[in-house]
Amino acid sequence: MIALLEQIISDCAHYPSQGHVATYIPELANVDPNKLGIVVSLEDGGVFAAGDYREQFTMQSVVKPLILLQALMDSSIDTVRALVGVEATGKPFDAFNYSDQALTGAHINPMINTGAIALCTLIRGDTYPEKFARLLALTRKLSGNPELDVDQAVFHSEKLTGNKNRALAYMLKAYGMISDPVEEILDCYFRACSISINCCDLAKIAHIFASHGVHPATKEPLFPAEYAKYVNATLATCGMYDGSGEFALTVGFPAKSGVGGGIMGVIPRRMGIGVFAPSLDKHGNSVAGVQALARLSQAMDLSIY
Amino acid sequence: MIALLEQIISDCAHYPSQGHVATYIPELANVDPNKLGIVVSLEDGGVFAAGDYREQFTMQSVVKPLILLQALMDSSIDTVRALVGVEATGKPFDAFNYSDQALTGAHINPMINTGAIALCTLIRGDTYPEKFARLLALTRKLSGNPELDVDQAVFHSEKLTGNKNRALAYMLKAYGMISDPVEEILDCYFRACSISINCCDLAKIAHIFASHGVHPATKEPLFPAEYAKYVNATLATCGMYDGSGEFALTVGFPAKSGVGGGIMGVIPRRMGIGVFAPSLDKHGNSVAGVQALARLSQAMDLSIY
Amino acid sequence: MIALLEQIISDCAHYPSQGHVATYIPELANVDPNKLGIVVSLEDGGVFAAGDYREQFTMQSVVKPLILLQALMDSSIDTVRALVGVEATGKPFDAFNYSDQALTGAHINPMINTGAIALCTLIRGDTYPEKFARLLALTRKLSGNPELDVDQAVFHSEKLTGNKNRALAYMLKAYGMISDPVEEILDCYFRACSISINCCDLAKIAHIFASHGVHPATKEPLFPAEYAKYVNATLATCGMYDGSGEFALTVGFPAKSGVGGGIMGVIPRRMGIGVFAPSLDKHGNSVAGVQALARLSQAMDLSIY
Amino acid sequence: MIALLEQIISDCAHYPSQGHVATYIPELANVDPNKLGIVVSLEDGGVFAAGDYREQFTMQSVVKPLILLQALMDSSIDTVRALVGVEATGKPFDAFNYSDQALTGAHINPMINTGAIALCTLIRGDTYPEKFARLLALTRKLSGNPELDVDQAVFHSEKLTGNKNRALAYMLKAYGMISDPVEEILDCYFRACSISINCCDLAKIAHIFASHGVHPATKEPLFPAEYAKYVNATLATCGMYDGSGEFALTVGFPAKSGVGGGIMGVIPRRMGIGVFAPSLDKHGNSVAGVQALARLSQAMDLSIY
Repeated sequence: MIALLEQIISDCAHYPSQGHVATYIPELANVDPNKLGIVVSLEDGGVFAAGDYREQFTMQSVVKPLILLQALMDSSIDTVRALVGVEATGKPFDAFNYSDQALTGAHINPMINTGAIALCTLIRGDTYPEKFARLLALTRKLSGNPELDVDQAVFHSEKLTGNKNRALAYMLKAYGMISDPVEEILDCYFRACSISINCCDLAKIAHIFASHGVHPATKEPLFPAEYAKYVNATLATCGMYDGSGEFALTVGFPAKSGVGGGIMGVIPRRMGIGVFAPSLDKHGNSVAGVQALARLSQAMDLSIY
Repeated sequence: MIALLEQIISDCAHYPSQGHVATYIPELANVDPNKLGIVVSLEDGGVFAAGDYREQFTMQSVVKPLILLQALMDSSIDTVRALVGVEATGKPFDAFNYSDQALTGAHINPMINTGAIALCTLIRGDTYPEKFARLLALTRKLSGNPELDVDQAVFHSEKLTGNKNRALAYMLKAYGMISDPVEEILDCYFRACSISINCCDLAKIAHIFASHGVHPATKEPLFPAEYAKYVNATLATCGMYDGSGEFALTVGFPAKSGVGGGIMGVIPRRMGIGVFAPSLDKHGNSVAGVQALARLSQAMDLSIY
Repeated sequence: MIALLEQIISDCAHYPSQGHVATYIPELANVDPNKLGIVVSLEDGGVFAAGDYREQFTMQSVVKPLILLQALMDSSIDTVRALVGVEATGKPFDAFNYSDQALTGAHINPMINTGAIALCTLIRGDTYPEKFARLLALTRKLSGNPELDVDQAVFHSEKLTGNKNRALAYMLKAYGMISDPVEEILDCYFRACSISINCCDLAKIAHIFASHGVHPATKEPLFPAEYAKYVNATLATCGMYDGSGEFALTVGFPAKSGVGGGIMGVIPRRMGIGVFAPSLDKHGNSVAGVQALARLSQAMDLSIY
Repeated sequence: MIALLEQIISDCAHYPSQGHVATYIPELANVDPNKLGIVVSLEDGGVFAAGDYREQFTMQSVVKPLILLQALMDSSIDTVRALVGVEATGKPFDAFNYSDQALTGAHINPMINTGAIALCTLIRGDTYPEKFARLLALTRKLSGNPELDVDQAVFHSEKLTGNKNRALAYMLKAYGMISDPVEEILDCYFRACSISINCCDLAKIAHIFASHGVHPATKEPLFPAEYAKYVNATLATCGMYDGSGEFALTVGFPAKSGVGGGIMGVIPRRMGIGVFAPSLDKHGNSVAGVQALARLSQAMDLSIY
């Protein structure tokens, strides 16, 4: 297994040059584009790692499945569905392309920024710091890493430069889809995006989605199986932005990428994967990360299709 | 002339029932929908008024030509053109329909909210209160009414509920088209929309655009003719929202409407018109106002086409 | 198994009243909206049927996975990918929403009409009747039913009224994506849509996609596994039109619906399903068919997510 | 006057290099890009010409105002308005960007291809050759040139390559906006686009629109003034494609351009202009033609705004 992972890392070493690291905040731009790490968490409890797997990076959009899960746990499937839709929009992650008629939940999904911002309001908590604390606690619990925390420099940069997200949030507010103060909601959202993590944490979180909410080691049920299936199905259709269809063909399992360079891969009933490689393709997905997952999928016959 | 205006008022009395007053803030919703006033300011200095011409209302989008004029006067034609385009977008006044690629000036024009908000930044002034003071002074000067002022109740309501405009402004900021603090720019924009005016003021302002910047009585040149033509041409193609083409056919001169119910009509080299009737059609234009202008255009052969 | 299917049929009997049969051609409108049939083809060779499973209906869009498969078999994955994309468009099956810039393969996918029409050109054959003959032969082979044939009345109606498809085809031609005569390509496409089939045929075809090209009984490899995965992955992200995301959540496996009322469900490595119920929801998917599949998925734990 | 025109021609000699001649059919591509001719037809009957004013070119979209006029004359304003709208769409002349909901007249206007194709059906005549004969007769009458005729080579090329127009026409048919055979309607439309003309003819046609249907010399009323205003107003808002707003600012009167390089300029109540210069800008408007008109407008104070 380790040999396979190392072979894959070696085979994918040239891919970062085909993309670019995200540059919208200096903290993301300063990363070494050639880093590549991968961790797989197997059914039998084995965890295998290779490459730059200890590298820390911020979750960015990889946190969206966790926001969705927390919203499902704290509200209900019906409440979540009433607020945000589930269809792929054919739009990139920050698309600003709503028609002149009223914006409705049907136009957005939990894997685009607008949908994830809206879902923050469904997390339980009297204040947004409380809501974020719940989300962080869940992320720590699923990863088994109580040390996980916000990268403050990234968080402050996101907050400073996040005007497109402000625009999206005010649009949600204008159409009555959220009612709390925009800056408080965004504070929670930006903190969530700024949680610092590594491939190992990611693989463990992915594994719990794969095992439908049951902790693979302790067998403790952490959340209902139907929530896991809700998240996994959403990842399969919308998790890789406008590259979701391509990813289904070439890799073939639910996954979520973030512009920090991470990808979380979920092979239902079987395993979880965490990958990190910060150079991104035109869709905002990790170039080397996608290639590594394609090779792993091929080698281990991981496609669910 | 008075007889003609009174006949028109009488003929148009039933139109308000075909529309609805704007309701997005209570101050606009509380107006009597059946009010209808009209004032024409003629070449020879004659000013004729009929109906509810003394009624005060807020300018709303009718202030857009004045924002454009002030921006032209304080910056230059080139600077204005570099920031906002001039093409009709085929989108309503608050359209939120920008593609996923970078927003550019070519996507907006000075007669939609996004464009007018952007143009506020080109008004001279160290602070936004200073910029607004200049705009108010210009409006007072063109109308010859030094009493013109902001309707504070409307202003505060606009500020409270203006989340769609916040979304538009943050989008401008996200794409680097504005750099000042959004709330300060919007404060200026909301104040401008909330200037209280009547048909008589509006007719006089219109007349100065018609006379290409020269005060009809004093013959004082208030601004260059090319700025007047810039504004008038923009009104002709984009002044009546998505009803601009229809208005060109049935009325036939540059005009600007606002959701407060006002319409400013400019007959170049000839006269200015102010109309007020708060019941709006689906495009956001005054129903009775458009009908009154169509009758007046027919009777006085005002179409420029 | 039979008891389960019959229970499902009984439970779903009231759903047809929530939709409407397709009416764009009289032949589709004349069908009894309350028909409901289901067939499952299991791994062990067992085939179970219930309800109106003998009812014949035309494939309509259910033929799209077969057009895609034939194009893959006769050209190659690279050629297919060069012509049509794989991303969900967020547009209904007959969307006509291409931007003013050149149309490219990236804007379409094999499960919308434009993509399927384009793929007809990649089927081997000197003439379009020859191409269609290959497609029909493949459909007969996969279903194990050598009697399958075109419903001539439906075909002639499609041809007569198919102007939206003509528009789509001429657009493909205008952008250089197809070069053969439009009417010849459409003749092949309309014939394909008009193949008459029943749930049993559909379940058997589905089963071969599920078994990755290997005939479940004879174990004969009919086409490469990678083509099956290509088709299945495409169905998972785009097979149910704008209801694909919803279907992934509530049912959870690759499927393709047609406005004739059929749905083909593929549970990879496990089983094939054919359903027929002609009353359609707003997305063009069989109302009772989707509900029956949701119940079956729940009862047999068929979700792949 | 001649001196002014010659000065303008000389000043604009370098503009053709900033654009490109249309190349979609060989007949258009073969033209000399540096040709530049201009003719003005004045109120007092004077006609002045300069440059390559004798050059023949095909009308292309310049024929659209004539199609609109003939439709108005043969049907009525109400019938024309019921079929096609009047709003600028913010889309180029061949935009293919209709939403998934039903296409309606409100989405199109007489100055884009879709609208002009639809209007051909409203011309009187039992057959499309008869309809075209009426349109040609009108064009000959307005230009005072009984020799005007179709350039057969251009017509046949248009017919051969006009697949985008076929797509637009089938879309109109699919939505029930036209019912006659598409190829017959397009035959009429392609012939209309292929009428060969020169600047002098164009200036005379323009002059009759300017004089509201009255022949400037004979004073014969050729069509009602309200039809002229309908056409002129439509040209003012939509005549120069996506450059209509820009043209209103820099030139300032109703005009229609065609990809053959012609522009017809209408100064209501005052004069008609014909320009020819085949090198086009990104909107499809003649580069040197627009510049020549801007200079002429400036020199003669022709802006109507």
